[in-house]
Amino acid sequence: MKIGFIGLGIMGKPMALNLLKSGHELVVYDIEAGNVGILTAAGAASAASAKEIAQECSVIITMLPNSPHVKAVVCGENGILESAKRGTVIIDMSSIAPGVSREICGICEKQGVKMLDAPVSGGEPKAIDGTLSIMVGGSKEVFDQVKDEILGKLGASVVYCGKTGAGNTTKLVNQIIVALNIAAVAEAFTLAQKAGVDSSVVFNAIKGGLAGSTVMNAKVPMILENNYKPGFKLDLHIKDLNNAIETGHETGSPLPLTVLVMEMMQTLRAEGFGQDDHSVLAKYYEKLSGDSIG
Amino acid sequence: MKIGFIGLGIMGKPMALNLLKSGHELVVYDIEAGNVGILTAAGAASAASAKEIAQECSVIITMLPNSPHVKAVVCGENGILESAKRGTVIIDMSSIAPGVSREICGICEKQGVKMLDAPVSGGEPKAIDGTLSIMVGGSKEVFDQVKDEILGKLGASVVYCGKTGAGNTTKLVNQIIVALNIAAVAEAFTLAQKAGVDSSVVFNAIKGGLAGSTVMNAKVPMILENNYKPGFKLDLHIKDLNNAIETGHETGSPLPLTVLVMEMMQTLRAEGFGQDDHSVLAKYYEKLSGDSIG
Amino acid sequence: MKIGFIGLGIMGKPMALNLLKSGHELVVYDIEAGNVGILTAAGAASAASAKEIAQECSVIITMLPNSPHVKAVVCGENGILESAKRGTVIIDMSSIAPGVSREICGICEKQGVKMLDAPVSGGEPKAIDGTLSIMVGGSKEVFDQVKDEILGKLGASVVYCGKTGAGNTTKLVNQIIVALNIAAVAEAFTLAQKAGVDSSVVFNAIKGGLAGSTVMNAKVPMILENNYKPGFKLDLHIKDLNNAIETGHETGSPLPLTVLVMEMMQTLRAEGFGQDDHSVLAKYYEKLSGDSIG
Amino acid sequence: MKIGFIGLGIMGKPMALNLLKSGHELVVYDIEAGNVGILTAAGAASAASAKEIAQECSVIITMLPNSPHVKAVVCGENGILESAKRGTVIIDMSSIAPGVSREICGICEKQGVKMLDAPVSGGEPKAIDGTLSIMVGGSKEVFDQVKDEILGKLGASVVYCGKTGAGNTTKLVNQIIVALNIAAVAEAFTLAQKAGVDSSVVFNAIKGGLAGSTVMNAKVPMILENNYKPGFKLDLHIKDLNNAIETGHETGSPLPLTVLVMEMMQTLRAEGFGQDDHSVLAKYYEKLSGDSIG
Repeated sequence: MKIGFIGLGIMGKPMALNLLKSGHELVVYDIEAGNVGILTAAGAASAASAKEIAQECSVIITMLPNSPHVKAVVCGENGILESAKRGTVIIDMSSIAPGVSREICGICEKQGVKMLDAPVSGGEPKAIDGTLSIMVGGSKEVFDQVKDEILGKLGASVVYCGKTGAGNTTKLVNQIIVALNIAAVAEAFTLAQKAGVDSSVVFNAIKGGLAGSTVMNAKVPMILENNYKPGFKLDLHIKDLNNAIETGHETGSPLPLTVLVMEMMQTLRAEGFGQDDHSVLAKYYEKLSGDSIG
Repeated sequence: MKIGFIGLGIMGKPMALNLLKSGHELVVYDIEAGNVGILTAAGAASAASAKEIAQECSVIITMLPNSPHVKAVVCGENGILESAKRGTVIIDMSSIAPGVSREICGICEKQGVKMLDAPVSGGEPKAIDGTLSIMVGGSKEVFDQVKDEILGKLGASVVYCGKTGAGNTTKLVNQIIVALNIAAVAEAFTLAQKAGVDSSVVFNAIKGGLAGSTVMNAKVPMILENNYKPGFKLDLHIKDLNNAIETGHETGSPLPLTVLVMEMMQTLRAEGFGQDDHSVLAKYYEKLSGDSIG
Repeated sequence: MKIGFIGLGIMGKPMALNLLKSGHELVVYDIEAGNVGILTAAGAASAASAKEIAQECSVIITMLPNSPHVKAVVCGENGILESAKRGTVIIDMSSIAPGVSREICGICEKQGVKMLDAPVSGGEPKAIDGTLSIMVGGSKEVFDQVKDEILGKLGASVVYCGKTGAGNTTKLVNQIIVALNIAAVAEAFTLAQKAGVDSSVVFNAIKGGLAGSTVMNAKVPMILENNYKPGFKLDLHIKDLNNAIETGHETGSPLPLTVLVMEMMQTLRAEGFGQDDHSVLAKYYEKLSGDSIG
Repeated sequence: MKIGFIGLGIMGKPMALNLLKSGHELVVYDIEAGNVGILTAAGAASAASAKEIAQECSVIITMLPNSPHVKAVVCGENGILESAKRGTVIIDMSSIAPGVSREICGICEKQGVKMLDAPVSGGEPKAIDGTLSIMVGGSKEVFDQVKDEILGKLGASVVYCGKTGAGNTTKLVNQIIVALNIAAVAEAFTLAQKAGVDSSVVFNAIKGGLAGSTVMNAKVPMILENNYKPGFKLDLHIKDLNNAIETGHETGSPLPLTVLVMEMMQTLRAEGFGQDDHSVLAKYYEKLSGDSIG
């Protein structure tokens, strides 16, 4: 069975390579020839459009930046649905708005095409290692078909979350918590700094208690060293929070803290920090307080 | 060496008992006779006032509700300073405002009395087990004198955080992060609920990743079961955030998220949830969204 | 000179009627035949599409719900640009995102078509009376051509605000302030209520001082009477704040209070208050505090 | 009838002078001899303490910085209650927490002393002109006794607001709205600036519509000229918001926007803007956005 793979960016490239390594036959498509070249050099075939991919493959993975890109690649001109046969399975591993997942899935179903939303977390390092966390929404039956042989080659944790959109909703829940937990340490360690207590002492004193978190362990050392090499870029977190806020508005789910942290992130993006790690949020507090943390 | 112990509330009682068990001779004082009775039954002596304690003991532990109580017991009528000898060491294990710690310490020093601020975290269960986390500010020399023989009998982790007030500042940093991390899971899981995804599935999907935290592990199950048996009472967290906000204002440290979460907590307190676990914050979101999480 | 008029909704209808009354020859288009019928009965001609309008008219007014509608009517299939001659003037009186105004204007200019963004405030009553406030962006020369004979028939105040997008930016500034001023009285009068002071007494005591505002005079009496007949609908204010927040993000302009008030409005919309007057924001506070204001 | 006047600061001095001018016999007390000298030069008698004032006068006005000062002057050592006769009337014109007004009033009543809370707004210029707005809480009967002959000499508007504390509650409602309306114009005009539209044009375009307010007329010109000569000092507004937030917490009244604006003000105070006009709040947005408004 040939698998189609559309979108060979920072995440897509290592994911496609892992599928090749695990023995899958791959047909890839990307708008950048350079990205395609890396995959064909590794043994993949290539196609000239999403439409062509759909002529050859009955399972197609998409890994694209955001909702409009997925919509275009699936439903647009030269898109998957122009040639996909009934029974084709699309696994959209992009992180997009759950409402858009449902919308695209609805269009697919009219043509007998099945779609899972299967966003990932873990970033480039875990994409390379094949140890991503994958959160999946859609038909449980389709999920069971692709879980071990395909998703299992890409991630260490593959969790079925519920009906269409549930994968992306779960991802948004994750991204909200990560954003707020980063803000929490930034806000709190600024207090330590301004009150004249050594931040690394505070870090060691509290990390083992109820305040402890993966964010604290991963991000506080970066903040204290003023090292914002990504990791996960602020711009991408902003993209996810946009989808979260849109979803909050659609569903009547209040996000007062998320929107405030979004404003902080936007302020930093306007200052040119969009390509830094999202923990650069600490700079918002440093700017307000006039002091460097750590 | 006799140790004085003032303040035999929920936390003070088991702490005093642990000191007794470890072989210390104790003289206790509390405004409630019943509390005193428990300690004298266990072998402690008692005194009629803080002043009397200070006549007998050269090390005095205070474990009181908040800043004004500590100030009164140390500096007020019939207080410690009315009879304390030069060289007396006060270990204030209450959680109070760092600025008040510094103020009281300054008054003590004029009389040759030394004071450490040594607030704890971990709650009643760890007070009973003698496994509290203790964060200490003040003279390093004094800290070294009491660390193993006294504080070491009460806590599993005893960390020197810096000059006077540093213990309480560290505690406030901890409490800010805990409050915001609780708010983070409450806000995010409300989105899961409103978007129709099972919260326990989301919990399992994300707890091992970057969104994971001690708060998530400890509090999300409580929220999903609508079980708010404390743990740590909302009212006490409000008290700590009050001290944090006061400290933020004194030091020019911005706390935009903390003040918003404080408002949420105050709204819940006004509705009668003050004696519930602080994770009852989830009810704020349930109220706004009109839906129960989990 | 024949004027084209596209979009005959609640606002567009009375505006088009006022142009007829002032002696202009009108050709109208709307997707609802009923709206068109009212105008043709009053003496207007009608057309079957925006494209047709552009064949006949060298000045075209658009009055549409939001950015995508304007984009579609101007740049889309059967849109104005499919037939507009060089020198055609489009006056977009819709309230849309300034960035989209600039985008559409840029497309128009490639075809020699000129566009003003000229959003209005004042609502249906002032549309009927021809006393709207009109805020205009774009070429000053074009503005001068249409100011008296066209815009002057629709509004009591016609202000040139600057280059393309400036009209819509000014409208957004207005809408942010109105939203926040409503929130201000809602938040403050809730305190009066909860503290047991009669809100109408407070209103009379402070309305003449520094706290006084047009919002206070217009909206507090509505809030005190629990009368939310619009006026200006919450749903429309949400639409405008969406554009404001989008513009804030594009320009690096922080909107911390606006996003919070937006969350309040979204919560109310989810509860079914979208068609009420925007002063229904007071209900958010009533819900939180458990008490009715006034 | 001799009137006592305690507290001859920036506000108290012109108020006392106005009472003298209106023919009242005055006995004054202030901790600063210089302030007293000005009043005695103008014909007032002076006393050595609040207690002495109370021996001579059956009506006593207090005009002090905040709650603790009023409490000390009324209930403390050498305070009014040490010598006040039954039937003495205290008119506290300070702006303090309504809860403290009620507390002090309760203590007074045990001694047969009556107290009104009668805070003012309008600042030094209106204190000088005798055109303050006075908001009064307490016994209506006592209010009627002092309304015309005393309060009427100090203010242009003297409004009875309800039972004890109602005057100060009304003042807090006023101060919340003023703070939020200032924040509204600061936030919105920052958007104008960042979007490249001239702020003075925007001001003229919108000030006559629903966004108009006394704050906009009074403060936007100051902000555009970067002129923060007080007016009303930021530090005083912070004091009032502290009382408002405390009252909100006591009464279960949510103040999410007020606490956020308070954080902005505290950030500015930490940077040394406390003595500037409260419209200096605009600098918070200028700092965040990196641009000067106007």
